[in-house]
Amino acid sequence: MPVNYATPAVDQLFPVPGVRLGVAEAEIRKKNRRDLTLVALDAGCTVAGVFTLNRFCAAPVQLCRKHLAGGKEIRALVINTGIANAGTGEPGRQTAQASCAAVGELLGIAADQVLPFSTGVILEPLPVDRLKAGLPAAQADLKADNWHAAAHAIMTTDTVAKAASRRVTVGGKTITVSGISKGAGMIKPNMATMLGFLATDAGIAQPLLDKLVREAADASFNCITVDGDTSTNDSYVMIASGQSGVSFAAESDAGWAEVKAAIIAVSVELAQAIVRDGEGATKFITVAVQGGKTIEECRQVGYAIGHSPLVKTAFFASDPNLGRILAAVGYAGIADLDVDGVKVWLASGENSVLVAENGGRAAAYQETDGARVMAQAEITVRVDLGRGAAQASVYTCDFSYDYVKINADYRS
Amino acid sequence: MPVNYATPAVDQLFPVPGVRLGVAEAEIRKKNRRDLTLVALDAGCTVAGVFTLNRFCAAPVQLCRKHLAGGKEIRALVINTGIANAGTGEPGRQTAQASCAAVGELLGIAADQVLPFSTGVILEPLPVDRLKAGLPAAQADLKADNWHAAAHAIMTTDTVAKAASRRVTVGGKTITVSGISKGAGMIKPNMATMLGFLATDAGIAQPLLDKLVREAADASFNCITVDGDTSTNDSYVMIASGQSGVSFAAESDAGWAEVKAAIIAVSVELAQAIVRDGEGATKFITVAVQGGKTIEECRQVGYAIGHSPLVKTAFFASDPNLGRILAAVGYAGIADLDVDGVKVWLASGENSVLVAENGGRAAAYQETDGARVMAQAEITVRVDLGRGAAQASVYTCDFSYDYVKINADYRS
Repeated sequence: MPVNYATPAVDQLFPVPGVRLGVAEAEIRKKNRRDLTLVALDAGCTVAGVFTLNRFCAAPVQLCRKHLAGGKEIRALVINTGIANAGTGEPGRQTAQASCAAVGELLGIAADQVLPFSTGVILEPLPVDRLKAGLPAAQADLKADNWHAAAHAIMTTDTVAKAASRRVTVGGKTITVSGISKGAGMIKPNMATMLGFLATDAGIAQPLLDKLVREAADASFNCITVDGDTSTNDSYVMIASGQSGVSFAAESDAGWAEVKAAIIAVSVELAQAIVRDGEGATKFITVAVQGGKTIEECRQVGYAIGHSPLVKTAFFASDPNLGRILAAVGYAGIADLDVDGVKVWLASGENSVLVAENGGRAAAYQETDGARVMAQAEITVRVDLGRGAAQASVYTCDFSYDYVKINADYRS
Repeated sequence: MPVNYATPAVDQLFPVPGVRLGVAEAEIRKKNRRDLTLVALDAGCTVAGVFTLNRFCAAPVQLCRKHLAGGKEIRALVINTGIANAGTGEPGRQTAQASCAAVGELLGIAADQVLPFSTGVILEPLPVDRLKAGLPAAQADLKADNWHAAAHAIMTTDTVAKAASRRVTVGGKTITVSGISKGAGMIKPNMATMLGFLATDAGIAQPLLDKLVREAADASFNCITVDGDTSTNDSYVMIASGQSGVSFAAESDAGWAEVKAAIIAVSVELAQAIVRDGEGATKFITVAVQGGKTIEECRQVGYAIGHSPLVKTAFFASDPNLGRILAAVGYAGIADLDVDGVKVWLASGENSVLVAENGGRAAAYQETDGARVMAQAEITVRVDLGRGAAQASVYTCDFSYDYVKINADYRS
């Protein structure tokens, strides 16, 4: 059961002109489930992506990087679930290559105009023949209003499909932004990981899109943690078709701020949906750190709190365990932190409670006030480091019996 | 239930001439439990310590650092459980100071010849009057063969008392090393953390002891992780009384290697006992990393594996989940790691199974072989990074339902 999240209805996910999606059952690992998604892009799209930093990055990630760097126009994405094609060495690279070649042949484009994505069991070979056999059905299913189906087809252990759309108007023209994502732990090396895809019909020049995808990832997928692990297959890809008739080449262009805001909002919604569907999650927690000297140190503190199993189990127990939060601030790695200048609040909705200041518990703090906040499903831990103007937020969930159950019982 | 650990019997914990220990019930937080330990040192001891790096370090830790830096001969240690005196600001420093003054008055020494230690609930004031009232009983109990009682008196949520002793002979004279430790999570900000005390009747010159305590901590307490958290009160203190008649001033002194080895062996045993008694632990796991360019990168990989909740839940489930281990190696932060050169073995006792090489699963690996190792209570994950000669080990335990239960249910 995700925390305060439901998949948008079919008609709330707006088609993006220039982008068609098709899904099929390819029996990659199991029968009777849609496990293959094909995304066909009209000519004229720009595409950019960010990928896992894990050294054991999967074969399709290696190929995505290569094809994006190659400079040819990307015309298709192919996404399979069931098998991650990670930890598969040279044979894995060959099957990823063969998938791209098959898509290319089908669509009449070159293999290096295709980006491949896989998620699922790692260390197992990808049955590329079954993938190829499924492609014609996915092609036959290609349509612009298929985001809902695609959101479902990329799920692995997700309990809910994740998607978001926005529309903004620029110079009298409507620009659409739609996206889908999957993931329930930050890593599931058996059913691997987090994928995100976003498309807009704004035109976005390649250098601007390259910068945007990084900024959007930093504000969204790079701010979330379920268990602190980083997978072999993490990918976030952004597509700009230009078919709205509105194009952007520079940040100073009129309307860019609105479009960028919509793209970041969709990115954040897709990323937060992963945390809301986090394995065993019963609460959605925002760790908002302000008053740092740098964004980096704010993120360090945010992640120290967001990763701490002790903090996360306390949230599960609705326990306003201030000591665990302060200890995490203290070991976050800011060597010259003056703890007497640190303030901490627990907040939910309108309710904000100052819990710590001057190196310890706030004088007026009553545990019953903290407990009232902790009983909510959406909680913000706000930390003021009292040493600068930088701020950053990290999104996480609590740590429950079910997290252990899911991860201990799970077998490929 | 600790994993393969039992407290040594009273007569297996050897007295250290020059060091007497006494325990008492002071009702620091609860009645009818021994919660106060006094350690009296004869004149002529050298003393050195290492302490938490947490910026929210507790008042007694601040005072320990000050008194050790002050250069006066340390003549006593006072240790209370129940209240950690952490996150207590200036009033906390005053109560820690008052504890030292009270011990000094009782023993006829100066307050800054006393090192104070507290472990227990944080953010609560230390009831220093009750501590003072308990001191005469602790003093009356002072005796050299009291290590067993002291090991019990410093416990908080530990399920077993932790102690170790060794004797070595140097130049026909017997040198004794005895120590005690406490801790069950790396941090329990309510019942805080890890303490260790070691004494020997070897004489060790201050510069040599200062170096030794760091080396011993790096080989023991700094190699363990239960949940990756670092507490506000962590302390490891080493005492050398010199009463064996054998003294050391330099590493080249005859017999030093043997004495140092015994001290490190006791340190490792005390540290590993904490992991064996880790909250909810059912398995003891050694992550032995070799073939690194530096010790630091070996430790990075060791901690990436040892901290990963996904790896730790897989161990709990006796699941040889190779993917989770490889993924942790991949995200450990070695930017230029060639994953094709990495090898991984799972081992227990005589049984060692090569599970990964060439960037994926080893060709001959059968999961039944891995499963046989994972079913054991003592498991070694051996990783060869294939890029150098450095090595390091990290000790950890698995991650069970009980970890969540203990940390979610625990309330002060």
